[in-house]
Amino acid sequence: METTAIRVTVWGENVHERSHEEVRKVYPDGMHSVIAAGVRERLGDAVTVRTATLDQPEHGLTEDVLASTDVLTWWGHMAHEKVDDAIVARVHQRVLQGMGLIVLHSGHYAKIFRTLMGTTCSLRWREANDREVIWTVSPAHPIAEGLPPAFIIPQEEMYGEFFDVPQPDELVFISSFTGGEVFRTGCCYRRGWGRIFYFRPGHESYPTYYQQEVRQVIANSIRWAHNPTQSRQKPYSADNAPTGWYEAPGGAAGQK
Amino acid sequence: METTAIRVTVWGENVHERSHEEVRKVYPDGMHSVIAAGVRERLGDAVTVRTATLDQPEHGLTEDVLASTDVLTWWGHMAHEKVDDAIVARVHQRVLQGMGLIVLHSGHYAKIFRTLMGTTCSLRWREANDREVIWTVSPAHPIAEGLPPAFIIPQEEMYGEFFDVPQPDELVFISSFTGGEVFRTGCCYRRGWGRIFYFRPGHESYPTYYQQEVRQVIANSIRWAHNPTQSRQKPYSADNAPTGWYEAPGGAAGQK
Amino acid sequence: METTAIRVTVWGENVHERSHEEVRKVYPDGMHSVIAAGVRERLGDAVTVRTATLDQPEHGLTEDVLASTDVLTWWGHMAHEKVDDAIVARVHQRVLQGMGLIVLHSGHYAKIFRTLMGTTCSLRWREANDREVIWTVSPAHPIAEGLPPAFIIPQEEMYGEFFDVPQPDELVFISSFTGGEVFRTGCCYRRGWGRIFYFRPGHESYPTYYQQEVRQVIANSIRWAHNPTQSRQKPYSADNAPTGWYEAPGGAAGQK
Amino acid sequence: METTAIRVTVWGENVHERSHEEVRKVYPDGMHSVIAAGVRERLGDAVTVRTATLDQPEHGLTEDVLASTDVLTWWGHMAHEKVDDAIVARVHQRVLQGMGLIVLHSGHYAKIFRTLMGTTCSLRWREANDREVIWTVSPAHPIAEGLPPAFIIPQEEMYGEFFDVPQPDELVFISSFTGGEVFRTGCCYRRGWGRIFYFRPGHESYPTYYQQEVRQVIANSIRWAHNPTQSRQKPYSADNAPTGWYEAPGGAAGQK
Repeated sequence: METTAIRVTVWGENVHERSHEEVRKVYPDGMHSVIAAGVRERLGDAVTVRTATLDQPEHGLTEDVLASTDVLTWWGHMAHEKVDDAIVARVHQRVLQGMGLIVLHSGHYAKIFRTLMGTTCSLRWREANDREVIWTVSPAHPIAEGLPPAFIIPQEEMYGEFFDVPQPDELVFISSFTGGEVFRTGCCYRRGWGRIFYFRPGHESYPTYYQQEVRQVIANSIRWAHNPTQSRQKPYSADNAPTGWYEAPGGAAGQK
Repeated sequence: METTAIRVTVWGENVHERSHEEVRKVYPDGMHSVIAAGVRERLGDAVTVRTATLDQPEHGLTEDVLASTDVLTWWGHMAHEKVDDAIVARVHQRVLQGMGLIVLHSGHYAKIFRTLMGTTCSLRWREANDREVIWTVSPAHPIAEGLPPAFIIPQEEMYGEFFDVPQPDELVFISSFTGGEVFRTGCCYRRGWGRIFYFRPGHESYPTYYQQEVRQVIANSIRWAHNPTQSRQKPYSADNAPTGWYEAPGGAAGQK
Repeated sequence: METTAIRVTVWGENVHERSHEEVRKVYPDGMHSVIAAGVRERLGDAVTVRTATLDQPEHGLTEDVLASTDVLTWWGHMAHEKVDDAIVARVHQRVLQGMGLIVLHSGHYAKIFRTLMGTTCSLRWREANDREVIWTVSPAHPIAEGLPPAFIIPQEEMYGEFFDVPQPDELVFISSFTGGEVFRTGCCYRRGWGRIFYFRPGHESYPTYYQQEVRQVIANSIRWAHNPTQSRQKPYSADNAPTGWYEAPGGAAGQK
Repeated sequence: METTAIRVTVWGENVHERSHEEVRKVYPDGMHSVIAAGVRERLGDAVTVRTATLDQPEHGLTEDVLASTDVLTWWGHMAHEKVDDAIVARVHQRVLQGMGLIVLHSGHYAKIFRTLMGTTCSLRWREANDREVIWTVSPAHPIAEGLPPAFIIPQEEMYGEFFDVPQPDELVFISSFTGGEVFRTGCCYRRGWGRIFYFRPGHESYPTYYQQEVRQVIANSIRWAHNPTQSRQKPYSADNAPTGWYEAPGGAAGQK
């Protein structure tokens, strides 16, 4: 049933991978390729997956691409400021109309995430090969499906609180690190008609996106964020509503 | 695919319907029969539906029945106090282990709902043929799927704020009434592994459960509350966790 | 104890009042003057109140003014787009560092509110002299102090759902209107170190800001949003955190 | 201003302290005495503090005592089942009417807490002298006032997720432990007219309640939970509300 597959676009900045030898060793075809492979591995025929990168025209996020994307995943880091404001506005609009958005790791500072959150999205950090343990604090949440109460990422960058985001609508995971820090690692938000999931792991120098549990979380979050039957064709901009507008024959059924 | 159908049990007090002529006229076979018919009408092969009533042994909610119920709907009013505490405890346990629960109208005062909420669950009320208008305040929520921005129930009992419940995890609908009152009419809660939805309409003297939009909300809420892949076989009662318990080969995968 | 008084700045667009005769009749010295008078009337020595308007240099919101403002109230409507982006960014930064913000009525479309919410902040509306009834749905919330379960504004513009904002951290009031619409009228948000309250009433052609209950809500919300002991001097931009950074003598006490 | 002091009752089970030599060494006059001393030390004239224990008539929680208590703190462990159900119901009623409740450590399994939460309140645990680090995840929350971003308790019992409680209305603190576990350590709930704060630390064999930061959190939480101007004299049990009940002269002001 190809027509009902979830249409996923995996966006990758793809800069570290070309400029840093140690990153290229881990992700020779770019992080986006491995993230996309993980989604395909986990979701199979339930998805169609393509990738897009910063250096493509319009960063690969043309009107056509976004119009045919159900869920967008976003990884960026050193080039956040190079993302064009007009493209950010376009993605923002699509999220508010119902496209799902999965923001990964250093994407916490991406323009699109800060725009949706309204806060600094800042946090503490350290690159010191900390071990990360990820704990489920909402075990019946769809994004936790198939995951154990805790799982380990052997080495990762540390992100620590305070993470300056709005209190999540649903908090699914909390991490601890070797150094003792904690972090709200899996955060769900509903904004407009869209759903947003922030997931912490994935520093460019570690093979995090090859790990089974990490792939499972991302796959689950794509399923959760997918909601095409309740998305909109145009921005919500409610019109004047004369008295009794919803009482006419057919009621409010034809209006949005 | 019979095995994957959602197993729904519709519980009805079934007292008004036998003791009040005016209620019997509207619901000659009991309210539970009409609620069940609505679920079948909307969800077809996706569900198997049975009913249970107060006067049955164990109120029809034996261990076997609950063990084979994915989602339970609850309507009660004048006989709340006749529901056995042991049965309430049994239902409570099952909800915390992952069974969905849909609480309808006067079920706000049912022992099971008050037990889950921890508050008085009290509210204002009036029987004066108010018109009720139900507004969606979370348009991309699965329980709002297929519903217009507003719909009308021509005559209903009025329920007004303050409704003494915990702030809902997600608020989906708000009602207004002819008299000017408002009410948080569609409230989602997650408790333990279970999901609970409170839906306001359904006074016994009105044909509310024959109305299409009301049936749609109940059907949607059953789908939303259904979560068997993440339910538990036994109560959550975490054991002592020795240092490193989750680090063993296989990790925490075998534990819950 | 003048030094501990809450320093309130009442910002008013002050355009309707000068260009529309019917608005000038209701608010001859500008809406901001009446809002400010209400704050003084209710809070007396507990506040020092000044006003600022769009046509002043930097819209009256210089660095000095904001640095000495504990709580800012905002009313704007027809000139939202004339508010300078740099001033919006300045106010945004101050809110995230701990300044309270009270957004009134048509301020829902102000740049500052949309920036903080991350959504369209759109809604339905009608100017037809609807009666508004405001209901308390969180009776022990500080912003509801001294208010009855319901109060009436005899004539107001209608605002109806869907109101496209994030689910409030705390929902305090819901309104109904003559036409049957409902609205989440009193919404609390915490963002960064700041607190934001949106309060619906206050169309320019009605004497809403003279009404006692409305003044009480605004005064209560100023007290609630005031939190100088926990505000910051500079933006939150967490630095690198070496292993054990919080374990040094004095611990993490000196860091923010 | 004695009359406006916060009236605090510190409830202690006081069983370990008399039966276990190692606990008596740490808390020779009972844990409640040290908790009470900490509250007095931090809040001085702003409070009047008394204690109550399980072995007193009515567990020291008579109608008179509760009627003159603004905030109750609760520590219990091995004797939860010995607390009389009638006293639990009395405390429950008072919380719903506006009395603050601070639940400490093993009080997570107290009847009063489980009654208010509606869930099992279960968790993982280990007694192995873990170091606990407590992180603030809501730095502008009143309960975090005066506290650093992180503080250390040198030795404590470990409590680990999943903690089976409703998602907190506000999450203030998260802990990590030497063993890598995390826990939602500071959780705020609003129920009826009352406020509840759960705070994790305080195993009986460690000197936790002598530590300055722990005392600061408890003192802050007492201030936060104190709300006498918005409490009720009787249970909320809303009556029939005839059409227009709130429109009479004086409006709804006289009603609750």
